[in-house]
Amino acid sequence: MVGIEMLRVLAQRRFPSERVIALASERSKGLAVPYNGSSIKVEELSESAFKGIDVALFAASGDIALMYGPAAAESGALVIDNSSAWRMKDNVPLVVPEVNADDIPENEGIIANPNCCAIPLTVVLNPLKKAVGLERVLVSTYQSASGAGRALVDELEEQTKAIADGKEPAVAAYPYQLAYNVVPGGWRLETDGYNEEEVKIGSETRKILHEPELRLTATCVRVPVPVGHGESVFVETKEKITADDARVLLGGAPGIIVQDDPQAKLYPTPHGVAGTDEVFVGRIREDRSTRNGLALWIVSDNLRKGAALNAVQIAEQAIEMGALGAVRA
Amino acid sequence: MVGIEMLRVLAQRRFPSERVIALASERSKGLAVPYNGSSIKVEELSESAFKGIDVALFAASGDIALMYGPAAAESGALVIDNSSAWRMKDNVPLVVPEVNADDIPENEGIIANPNCCAIPLTVVLNPLKKAVGLERVLVSTYQSASGAGRALVDELEEQTKAIADGKEPAVAAYPYQLAYNVVPGGWRLETDGYNEEEVKIGSETRKILHEPELRLTATCVRVPVPVGHGESVFVETKEKITADDARVLLGGAPGIIVQDDPQAKLYPTPHGVAGTDEVFVGRIREDRSTRNGLALWIVSDNLRKGAALNAVQIAEQAIEMGALGAVRA
Repeated sequence: MVGIEMLRVLAQRRFPSERVIALASERSKGLAVPYNGSSIKVEELSESAFKGIDVALFAASGDIALMYGPAAAESGALVIDNSSAWRMKDNVPLVVPEVNADDIPENEGIIANPNCCAIPLTVVLNPLKKAVGLERVLVSTYQSASGAGRALVDELEEQTKAIADGKEPAVAAYPYQLAYNVVPGGWRLETDGYNEEEVKIGSETRKILHEPELRLTATCVRVPVPVGHGESVFVETKEKITADDARVLLGGAPGIIVQDDPQAKLYPTPHGVAGTDEVFVGRIREDRSTRNGLALWIVSDNLRKGAALNAVQIAEQAIEMGALGAVRA
Repeated sequence: MVGIEMLRVLAQRRFPSERVIALASERSKGLAVPYNGSSIKVEELSESAFKGIDVALFAASGDIALMYGPAAAESGALVIDNSSAWRMKDNVPLVVPEVNADDIPENEGIIANPNCCAIPLTVVLNPLKKAVGLERVLVSTYQSASGAGRALVDELEEQTKAIADGKEPAVAAYPYQLAYNVVPGGWRLETDGYNEEEVKIGSETRKILHEPELRLTATCVRVPVPVGHGESVFVETKEKITADDARVLLGGAPGIIVQDDPQAKLYPTPHGVAGTDEVFVGRIREDRSTRNGLALWIVSDNLRKGAALNAVQIAEQAIEMGALGAVRA
């Protein structure tokens, strides 16, 4: 789903390209994928396929990224990888352009695209960090089916049809029925009862923000939504900031749209923001349960800003900074 | 929905009754409502309708509760009211039997049944309070459509059918489409950007737990689920408790079932707990972002433990304690 979205974003943003090719496993070879009102035929992924390529956007598994990323980089491409395989490695910048574009030139041929919840979270936390400093962040997620890939989106659709027909929904792609349900799992378990998604949100947010000591805990929950991730966030800041000041600060920060007037029923929802590029923030309140705290509600399109768009934005920024592999060579 | 559920719970629990009557507005007079394998005819609500009644379970609006509660109490009934109208008043106990049954005898004819999120939350917080003390609680909710009443459940069903048919879902009962979406609003706004649901969870939890100074902040979100509320909770405790000890403590506490083995895909979901009586807890983890903290995931049936069942349990407890109006007279 992210690969298809990358092609859509490249065309929509008129990304400066002479040639765009699509690579996949042998199984998908010859398939046509939509691009810029037409389509392109999928070619087979191989180490030699990257010859002459300046930017290689990876939207595959971590295994594929580990196997082919270095070869692509060696042949002169700047690899921007959407998997988690390279994200926490030294010498691999983990980049959200609005936050840490300055890390881009530090790359050695591979830049990692962060987790779909960490991207919008850091877009919102960064202005707060600069203005009042961060003490502690607590996140509860409302993550859409597309974050787990096409199979779960299809399963949610099938389950929805079954429920509409009064039938029992079939469960295959996910541990539990997702339609008419919310599921606090489905990710690989790590230590202390946390799953890999919860761990990623913490470690990646710390790396992107250059805040290695930031205290952050997350609870991740899958919700029956096709596209668009929500995050309920409690932020403790070093200095006090009022809700009004936070609204002004965030409203003026790059990549953010503040939608925050509950009286007028104005707050972001996944259905409302799907297909858009910005990170939406609403329900901004002072959290009186701590000395300096805010409660926030963040929503963004996990396939776009949470994945494909952010990858393309990294490429655009790298070009602007003259940090492409071909330029370096 | 809560009224129908109350009748179901009364029959299921073989509540000791000589006579059960159903009262509603003139509009519903004569309608048959299911009870104990048969049905009873709805009679018209009036001040004189409570004559000879020992327990009056109210599942109506706050206005109706304010208007008819005192008359019912004066005619000798113990009123157990599910609206929010009486909850925060002095001399009106706000009761979760597992937590503060001792408050029941303090009633002056009216006992209030708490908010559907505050009930499961206090069932879980109370053992933690007793064992290690509570410092601060942060709650993000995943609340089902039935919490807003029949109209939203019907609308969710209609929207689900429309989506299954490839049509545009109609929006009427709620500010935004709920199917395939999550909505951080729909409740009346109070001060500082918080809505009434978020305020209730704080004030009612403090009253039930007898912790008037407990620091608690909530963010409430509606999810496309018919029945069953989820809550992602971060608890800061006065003393340290490990996740293992918390599992043992909560597993031995009244009204709680611990479902917590993510490796075996064991954690509660709304779809899984709908129709059950207990409060389910899973995803119990130590929150390392604070000195003494836990992260938890709580789910319960909002129509049963979150409303009807808790009301009936209050009545059962009152009978056991000899605290009925008729007994007092």
